Amino acid sequence: MAERGLDAIVVSGKMNGNPALYYAANGARLISGWVVKKRGEERVLMSSAIDREEAAASGLRVVTLDQYDYETVVRQAPDRLAAEVELYRRLFADLGVSGKVGFYGMGDQGRAWTLLNALAGEIDGIEVCGERDTTLIDVARATKDAEEAARIREVGRRTAAIMGQTVEFLQSHRAVDGVLVQADGTPLTIGRVHRQIGLFLAEQGLDVPEGVIFAIGRDAGVPHNKGTSTDVLALGKTIIFDFGTREVGGGYYFDMTRTFCLGYAPPEIEKIYRDVRDCVEMLTGAYGAGIDTRTYMQMACDLFESRGYPTIGGTPGTRTGFVHGLGHGIGLAVHEEPFFSLSPVNLTVLQPGHVFTCEPGLYDPGRGYGVRIEDVVWIDQDGVAQDLTDFPKELVIPV
Amino acid sequence: MAERGLDAIVVSGKMNGNPALYYAANGARLISGWVVKKRGEERVLMSSAIDREEAAASGLRVVTLDQYDYETVVRQAPDRLAAEVELYRRLFADLGVSGKVGFYGMGDQGRAWTLLNALAGEIDGIEVCGERDTTLIDVARATKDAEEAARIREVGRRTAAIMGQTVEFLQSHRAVDGVLVQADGTPLTIGRVHRQIGLFLAEQGLDVPEGVIFAIGRDAGVPHNKGTSTDVLALGKTIIFDFGTREVGGGYYFDMTRTFCLGYAPPEIEKIYRDVRDCVEMLTGAYGAGIDTRTYMQMACDLFESRGYPTIGGTPGTRTGFVHGLGHGIGLAVHEEPFFSLSPVNLTVLQPGHVFTCEPGLYDPGRGYGVRIEDVVWIDQDGVAQDLTDFPKELVIPV
Repeated sequence: MAERGLDAIVVSGKMNGNPALYYAANGARLISGWVVKKRGEERVLMSSAIDREEAAASGLRVVTLDQYDYETVVRQAPDRLAAEVELYRRLFADLGVSGKVGFYGMGDQGRAWTLLNALAGEIDGIEVCGERDTTLIDVARATKDAEEAARIREVGRRTAAIMGQTVEFLQSHRAVDGVLVQADGTPLTIGRVHRQIGLFLAEQGLDVPEGVIFAIGRDAGVPHNKGTSTDVLALGKTIIFDFGTREVGGGYYFDMTRTFCLGYAPPEIEKIYRDVRDCVEMLTGAYGAGIDTRTYMQMACDLFESRGYPTIGGTPGTRTGFVHGLGHGIGLAVHEEPFFSLSPVNLTVLQPGHVFTCEPGLYDPGRGYGVRIEDVVWIDQDGVAQDLTDFPKELVIPV
Repeated sequence: MAERGLDAIVVSGKMNGNPALYYAANGARLISGWVVKKRGEERVLMSSAIDREEAAASGLRVVTLDQYDYETVVRQAPDRLAAEVELYRRLFADLGVSGKVGFYGMGDQGRAWTLLNALAGEIDGIEVCGERDTTLIDVARATKDAEEAARIREVGRRTAAIMGQTVEFLQSHRAVDGVLVQADGTPLTIGRVHRQIGLFLAEQGLDVPEGVIFAIGRDAGVPHNKGTSTDVLALGKTIIFDFGTREVGGGYYFDMTRTFCLGYAPPEIEKIYRDVRDCVEMLTGAYGAGIDTRTYMQMACDLFESRGYPTIGGTPGTRTGFVHGLGHGIGLAVHEEPFFSLSPVNLTVLQPGHVFTCEPGLYDPGRGYGVRIEDVVWIDQDGVAQDLTDFPKELVIPV
C-alpha cells in the first residue's frame, strides 16, 4: 500500500467468483462483504447481520450493516446508489478512513464506475484511486505461503486420484471394432465419461467452475473445446483431459492435463507426444526464482520451432502448432499472476511462492489431433521449483 | 436501451460468476468475452481466437481478438490499461459504436473505474453511461421466457429428487440413544450428510456455487449457517436443508428449503412449523401479476406478528422471529430481481415471467431452532402464479 501511495483499501462484492474478496476475508463463507484495511492497521470485515457467524469465522474484526442502520438508509434513499454512498460515508467515518483509497473486488463494471465517481464526488476527504495494471491484491495473491501451497498440493493429490480413476474407468470397457463399448454393447461416449468424472469430483470434494475438457480427435485439436457428448471413444485418437479443480464451493485451485490414446498411438502422434513431454521436462528442470517468465515462454517456442512446428512466438495467430501461452499462476483463481507472455512489457520474474502451470501443447484440428501435458509447479521458499503433479506422463492406455 | 438513452451497450468480463455476460452471450462457454449491441442491431460477440468455437455456439456474429491484432497491441502498449483502451478503440471503430455507451458485466471494481474513465477520456465520440439502480441487464434478466422457465423447472425437478434421496439416506440409518448411527455404530454426522448430498448433486448434473446449508439445532437458528461438520444427527431437533442448485458449470438456478425433525418434533416446533407453512400457503395462493412485491413481504410480517413473533418489519434488526427478506428472484444468479423489500422505494410489481422464491422462516438460536420453507414460484404468461416446487412439506421424518 505504501508503494502505491494508498492510505486505505476496500475489497468488496459478492463472494462467489470473487477471489480478491475471498483472499481479503480469509475465505469467510459470506454471500457478500466489504473488507477495509487502513495502511498499517488490521483489516475490518463488514457483513450483513445474517452472515455474522460466517464473518466471525474469518478471524477479522467484524462490523455489520445494521450497526450503520442500513435498513433505514435503504428505506430513505432515493435509489440504490444513494444508499450505497451513505453506507460508505458511515463506514468510513466509523473507521476513520480518509485520503487515497483503492477499491478492489468483483462488481458490475458500469455500476462500479458510477459508485466510485459518486464516492469521489460526495464523500469529503476521499480520493478514489485506480490501478492501470496488475493490482495490489493480484500481487499479494501471486505468492503463496506454506499453508496455501499445502492446500494446493492436496487439491493436486485428489486431482491425480481422479485422473487415475478415469483411466481405470476407461480400461473397464472392452474394445469392439475400434471403439470402447459398455456392458450393454452400446459405445461409450464422451458425455458418459463427463458424467463419470463429475461423480469422481464429488467423491473428492472438488468442483470445476470452468468445466472439464475431455475431448477426442479433432476437438482435442482446439484447446478450449470441451468435447462433444455424442462422440465415441475410438482407439488410436488423441484424448485431452484437462480440468481446473477447486476446493468445493470456493477456495484453491489445481490444474492438470494429460493426453491419452486408447489401445495404441499412431507413430506421428507418438513423435508429437515426445516433443511435448520433452518440453515439459526441459522446463520443469529449468524453473527457478529470479528468472523472467518470458524466458520460459521463449524456450518453449524455440524448442518447438527447432522441431518444425509453428508457434505463436514466430507466427502470431497460428492455429496449428503451439497456439497458446505456456502457463499461468493458479491459486484462488484458475488463471492469475504470474503469466508467461512474450510481451516486452511482461517484466514478471519468478519468485519464491509462485505456483503456476507448465502446459505446452501441439495442435492440428485439420489433422484431427491435439496433445497437451500440464503440471503445476511451485517455487518453494528456497527458490527451488517443485512439481506438485504426481501422475505419470504415458500416452497409451492399454485396453 | 431507448428508454435509458443508450446508443450501445457492452457486456464483458470473465464468464465464470458473470450472469450478465452469460445472458448476453447466450450461455457460450467462453473463458471471457465482450458482447456489443448497438441500439436496434444484432449483438456481436468478441472472444479470443482460442475460444472461437465456444463463441460460435452462441449463434451470435463473432469477432476475435486477433482480428484486432491484440497480441501486437499488448506487446506495444506501456501497460495493460493502455492495451485495453486500444482494443476498445479498434473494436468500436470496426463496429461503428459511438454516442452513449453503457457497460455491464463483472470486473474488478477499481480497474473498471480506471478503464471506463480512460475510455471516456481517450476515445472520441464515446460517452460512458452508468446506472444508479437496477441495470438494463438486470431488468431484462428478471422476466423469463417459456424456455427459461422450463429450464428452471427442470432444475427444480432434479433438486426435489435430491431432497428425496437425502431423506431416504437419513432413513437408511438406525437411531440409537437419540442420534442416527451408521452401520459401524458411529454417529452419522452433518459432514457425512454434506458429502452424500455432493454425490447426489453430481448424479443430477447440478452444482451449488453458494454452498449447501444442512444445519441442525442452534445452527439452524442462524439463517446462513451451513452446519457444523462434527455435529451429530439428533432426533427431535430442527434441521434446515437449503440449497441453491444450478445447471453444472453455469446456467439457471433453483432454490429450495425444507425443515425436518428426525423421529419426532416437540410441540413448540410443530406449532412454529405450522405457522411457517401457513405463511407459504397464504402467499403462494396470493401471488399474481400486477401486485407490488412489497405487499407480500408486509403480508408475511403481518401474519407472523399476529401470531406473536417479532419480524424485521415491526422490529428492524431483530435476530429472533422472521429475520430476513421474504424472497428473491432466481435465474442466472441465485439472488436477482425481483426482490421483496419493505423499502418505500421498492416499486417492483410482479410481472408475467418473474420467477422467485417464497421463503418465510422463524428462528431463535438461543432456543436452538430454525424453521424455513422455500418454494419457487413462476408468474406465467397469463399472470398466474405456479409453484415450481414439487416436494411435500412434512416436518417429521420417521426413523
